[in-house]
Amino acid sequence: MLLSCPDRKGLVAGISDFIFRNGGNIIYADQHIDPEEDVFLLRIEWELEDFQFPRQEIGEAFRSIAERFEMSWDLRFSDCVPRMAIFVSKMEHRLYDLLWRQRAGEFKAEIPLVISNHPDLQPLAESFGVEYHCYPITPEMKAAQEKRILDKLEEERIDLVVLARYMQILSPQFVDRYPNRIINIHHSSLPAFAGGRPYHQAYERGVKTIGATGHYVTVELDQGPIIEQDVVRVRHRDSVVNLIRKGRDLEKVVLARAVNLHLHNTILVYGNKTVVFD
Amino acid sequence: MLLSCPDRKGLVAGISDFIFRNGGNIIYADQHIDPEEDVFLLRIEWELEDFQFPRQEIGEAFRSIAERFEMSWDLRFSDCVPRMAIFVSKMEHRLYDLLWRQRAGEFKAEIPLVISNHPDLQPLAESFGVEYHCYPITPEMKAAQEKRILDKLEEERIDLVVLARYMQILSPQFVDRYPNRIINIHHSSLPAFAGGRPYHQAYERGVKTIGATGHYVTVELDQGPIIEQDVVRVRHRDSVVNLIRKGRDLEKVVLARAVNLHLHNTILVYGNKTVVFD
Amino acid sequence: MLLSCPDRKGLVAGISDFIFRNGGNIIYADQHIDPEEDVFLLRIEWELEDFQFPRQEIGEAFRSIAERFEMSWDLRFSDCVPRMAIFVSKMEHRLYDLLWRQRAGEFKAEIPLVISNHPDLQPLAESFGVEYHCYPITPEMKAAQEKRILDKLEEERIDLVVLARYMQILSPQFVDRYPNRIINIHHSSLPAFAGGRPYHQAYERGVKTIGATGHYVTVELDQGPIIEQDVVRVRHRDSVVNLIRKGRDLEKVVLARAVNLHLHNTILVYGNKTVVFD
Amino acid sequence: MLLSCPDRKGLVAGISDFIFRNGGNIIYADQHIDPEEDVFLLRIEWELEDFQFPRQEIGEAFRSIAERFEMSWDLRFSDCVPRMAIFVSKMEHRLYDLLWRQRAGEFKAEIPLVISNHPDLQPLAESFGVEYHCYPITPEMKAAQEKRILDKLEEERIDLVVLARYMQILSPQFVDRYPNRIINIHHSSLPAFAGGRPYHQAYERGVKTIGATGHYVTVELDQGPIIEQDVVRVRHRDSVVNLIRKGRDLEKVVLARAVNLHLHNTILVYGNKTVVFD
Repeated sequence: MLLSCPDRKGLVAGISDFIFRNGGNIIYADQHIDPEEDVFLLRIEWELEDFQFPRQEIGEAFRSIAERFEMSWDLRFSDCVPRMAIFVSKMEHRLYDLLWRQRAGEFKAEIPLVISNHPDLQPLAESFGVEYHCYPITPEMKAAQEKRILDKLEEERIDLVVLARYMQILSPQFVDRYPNRIINIHHSSLPAFAGGRPYHQAYERGVKTIGATGHYVTVELDQGPIIEQDVVRVRHRDSVVNLIRKGRDLEKVVLARAVNLHLHNTILVYGNKTVVFD
Repeated sequence: MLLSCPDRKGLVAGISDFIFRNGGNIIYADQHIDPEEDVFLLRIEWELEDFQFPRQEIGEAFRSIAERFEMSWDLRFSDCVPRMAIFVSKMEHRLYDLLWRQRAGEFKAEIPLVISNHPDLQPLAESFGVEYHCYPITPEMKAAQEKRILDKLEEERIDLVVLARYMQILSPQFVDRYPNRIINIHHSSLPAFAGGRPYHQAYERGVKTIGATGHYVTVELDQGPIIEQDVVRVRHRDSVVNLIRKGRDLEKVVLARAVNLHLHNTILVYGNKTVVFD
Repeated sequence: MLLSCPDRKGLVAGISDFIFRNGGNIIYADQHIDPEEDVFLLRIEWELEDFQFPRQEIGEAFRSIAERFEMSWDLRFSDCVPRMAIFVSKMEHRLYDLLWRQRAGEFKAEIPLVISNHPDLQPLAESFGVEYHCYPITPEMKAAQEKRILDKLEEERIDLVVLARYMQILSPQFVDRYPNRIINIHHSSLPAFAGGRPYHQAYERGVKTIGATGHYVTVELDQGPIIEQDVVRVRHRDSVVNLIRKGRDLEKVVLARAVNLHLHNTILVYGNKTVVFD
Repeated sequence: MLLSCPDRKGLVAGISDFIFRNGGNIIYADQHIDPEEDVFLLRIEWELEDFQFPRQEIGEAFRSIAERFEMSWDLRFSDCVPRMAIFVSKMEHRLYDLLWRQRAGEFKAEIPLVISNHPDLQPLAESFGVEYHCYPITPEMKAAQEKRILDKLEEERIDLVVLARYMQILSPQFVDRYPNRIINIHHSSLPAFAGGRPYHQAYERGVKTIGATGHYVTVELDQGPIIEQDVVRVRHRDSVVNLIRKGRDLEKVVLARAVNLHLHNTILVYGNKTVVFD
């Protein structure tokens, strides 16, 4: 359970008492208080083995506590395997990496489909046994195609969308359907070098480190809540090609970490920031 | 409060209920379960403002819970300012750095005295208004001098000893008096290059990173629980002198972090490891 | 000798032959070619012990080679100890760190004076035996005071100006007098969070790393050639105060590295970038 | 050309003059002097377009200079594509990563064959169009199988052997045939945790960083010259499984970097160390 609410006395006691009285064993609890906003954020996890409510009734049972403390909360079950769709265009390296990690058991998720605006990566997806759906995008047909993609995602009961170099900007309508459930990797340490061709921008500026940022997609481009960032050092000898190569390794690792943090239900979005209970 | 005990149902609920029922507001709670050892570790912090027990009675009130769950626990008050002694020999850079940080308000601690086996750094300590006590050590007089130092520490009610290049090995008798309360900085990423002259060893081996390790002192040299580690990259151009210089910056930062983690009561020692609730 | 010129055949041979024929022993040579701009950049160092020209005649002797290849070049003597002025306002931590490093022998430089617009740090500078000159700045008197500072720098034969939290923007006239000889430390990974209060900006944006950038000052604020950058990881638990504290350690190290790279004559500025021959 | 010799006057001039007089344009020169051993090491690269000697005669032409300065030297042609063999056992992740990088154009090398002591990864190698040869190893047949492998490597004109989790220790006879041409990745920051199960050792010791080391294989296990190292931070929450996962990303990157440094002829081995001209 992930929850946030105004900070008050008795919050942890109230919640943990509710869990204990009903037979649950707490196996994880971590909290954060933002003193400026006076907001309390909590991630708490318990075993359902002897819990006296069946899953579908927990929400109802918890309601009175939630209302008392004005909580906004979200209940997830760790044995539930989320379903993840990967969006790509033509570049293979991130798709490859994600599919490989999934096969290697790194992600606790199913990947039932890959969505693209180009047919190029179909053989790659299929070599991993994943369906590939191609929706070409032109300015005129963008709205209609996005609608078809949304239908497809719904049909496949997709929980998480991962943009692995999908070279299209999603419309606000699309983004609103998956709030804090679309993860993008930007190949710079945001807010530096937002927008296009960040490695070229970095080369021009003569920086000594390059970065990558995994973030949730919001309607404002490259402005969503940051999940994970990391950097790698570069030197004057590094050409743009080298920056791209060094960055590629970084992007893969940062994206995989961001996806895993999401899949393990460790992220609480709060304002335009994330609290990561790792 | 920092505590550890065998993992059981109702632990978090029992403790947080105890705090809430008695009027405390929990402002921090983080826990860790070691599944292999079936051990539960918790750090929980609450406000005493409306708490119904005065400080000295909290332990007694908590006893029944503690006994029920076979807890070993430690209660600390965040407004209590620990008293820290720094042990040095002749090298000034770490002493300087620690005293400067203390003056800059980085450490929530008092530093009433510096202990040394040489007189060299007396002016430095005194320029920061800190008493300096010199106890020369020779093999014959080591036991007697350690006894005098221990008496001094007790007289000054020292809570934490920080070894900032104290070039003497403390006797087991000494170490036993301050279990998990003596912090040393070793200038390598332990367990690599334990023992003497780690930078020279690192240079000989031709490594590409050098490290520093902040750890608690135990009777086995350089084998105590690790609190914090970090590394910095080096190249073939780096002579031993350069390794020492690069390492010096690293040592200072790693030692300051380790001391701060201790002073904020975030460390639970467990086996020969630390759990750091940061 | 640091030089740059259009890339041509025979450059290295021409220069190294000049040195060898005249009795010099090359102890360092490193070069870089920017293939896009077709520019050749070289750092070459030789011993003067048996060199047949006295120092003041080397330039004249080298002139014919320099003209043939259209070189812009700069000759520096490694036994010449540069004179460095530190500019501060009221915050002591960077001044402290720089003066301490100088005393510890980390910088191959003299520090004859500290310049400030406030009197606060005079005791600190003087405790290190360094003269302190205070030039209060108000909008009306800024031009006149800068003129006085420039006169003072000239009188003291200053080679390098280091801005250690000098809270005044230098005028273009001032900057032009010390091209690529004024080093500033900005407390973010430029170009992110240029301008004021970068830690507050970083906190607002919810980043997962914070950085520091050592750069040469040009007339455009925070836009000069970058010498050195590094970052440190942060978490949601880090308040602005913590960001400042973590950043402070980073700033000190990055500034010291940048100053040392300059003092060892390893930096060639080229366009708005640096080539660092380290 | 990579060379090392006793340090003397006129070395750079002699070599660069030789290149220039014969029509070569130097495009890279970097050197290092070990002052303790009085050894000079150089990497120099020039264009052969107008060079007056054909490739096979350069060595002969250079001989007199080489003898005068007692150089040991090695001449490599950057348009020559080295041939690399990958040795594996049963674990796929590194093989996958290496083959993918090769296909993505990251390595300037051909990979004509994969050698294994198990048949498991044959489909993977073949899906990348690479031959797979299986040589099962038992103690009795080890010498004979190694002989067959060596014959195979010779037949395929292999220049570089990369051990990607090959769970066999190569005999001294084997190692001697490929001096400084067998690269292994060890999953710790050597010299820490040499030998088996380094992640388990690291977990036991409670370290706060884990590392990976790319090194040349010598007859002493895990003692060869280090090419590249890096680390990643870990916390008490990281189980051994997590250490392995985090380490896996690190291993891949460190191994790829080490292989690339070798393929670009940037490494000079010297004593038991490397000089990396990157």
